[in-house]
Amino acid sequence: MAKSNIGKMRVGISPSVIVGALVNGKENYITLGQCSGLSMNPPMMYISINKAHYTNDGIKENGYFSVNIPSDGVVQKMDYVGLVSGRDTDKSSVFTPFYGEDEKAPMIEECPVNILCKLINTVDLPNNEVFIGEIVETYVGKEFIIDEKPDLKKINPLLLAGGQYCELGNPVAATREVGKLLK
Amino acid sequence: MAKSNIGKMRVGISPSVIVGALVNGKENYITLGQCSGLSMNPPMMYISINKAHYTNDGIKENGYFSVNIPSDGVVQKMDYVGLVSGRDTDKSSVFTPFYGEDEKAPMIEECPVNILCKLINTVDLPNNEVFIGEIVETYVGKEFIIDEKPDLKKINPLLLAGGQYCELGNPVAATREVGKLLK
Repeated sequence: MAKSNIGKMRVGISPSVIVGALVNGKENYITLGQCSGLSMNPPMMYISINKAHYTNDGIKENGYFSVNIPSDGVVQKMDYVGLVSGRDTDKSSVFTPFYGEDEKAPMIEECPVNILCKLINTVDLPNNEVFIGEIVETYVGKEFIIDEKPDLKKINPLLLAGGQYCELGNPVAATREVGKLLK
Repeated sequence: MAKSNIGKMRVGISPSVIVGALVNGKENYITLGQCSGLSMNPPMMYISINKAHYTNDGIKENGYFSVNIPSDGVVQKMDYVGLVSGRDTDKSSVFTPFYGEDEKAPMIEECPVNILCKLINTVDLPNNEVFIGEIVETYVGKEFIIDEKPDLKKINPLLLAGGQYCELGNPVAATREVGKLLK
């Protein structure tokens, strides 16, 4: 396949999530693409936020953040909380918050999936802080649970691709299965 | 929305990528879902691999790894390199390798996107090593570049969701645009 060297650039799909944190005692939300899994056991994930953002201090102060997975019903609000800063706009009433046992980070009622993370490590990059969290509680809307498991096709999480929020598409093959034919 | 607390579990979509590394002087490949972006400037990304894997030593020895984004034409080979270990199976001939300037990690000719990363930090988790890389070169198949930009819909990268490799679905809204109506 003929290739072009396009420089130094990540090309790929990211999940679009809304991060919740308490900042100066108020619920604050920010939309992020730099968020994914780090470990299955113990269950750990990260979010990476540019150092200029208001949310960072709240995460460091409280030691908790939430990762909320939207479906297309909240796309407009999700985009909005990524456009304005909590430094000059109170975003606490954009979503309906709920709390887990620790009451250290708000989760979003309107999102089908809510993952509460306890901060265990922060990696300092030149312009970003990478917050590594251990998952302490996960909530899923009852209507999105099929056969006792969260159903991602039904959750219909949004993905970032080329300046668009996109839906999940069709399955093409089963993991840890289709490659067995080459063994 | 009525919610169930399902315990401690990451629920969400992951990109499915093939990581390339030289291990004991041979090309080796592993399929991963734990891979995403950490920073736009400088461009940085990570891969997280369970410590039991053969690939880890090669990345630490050479200080480089590649992230290769497949499209559905390589799904069977991608699944296969995730099923067998380089410790007992030579995977060097599964794909056609090519190299950037440094010749420290193989990239995969058959994949539409290849990202070469230089290891800058390793985060030690209980069962995983998180390799943080700075992107040093990115290659995209010429046929996947539209208006001088990589076209993700054409690349058609695969996503992991509920035990299936899935395609990217349809766009629902423009990022940093649809939320402006709430300002």
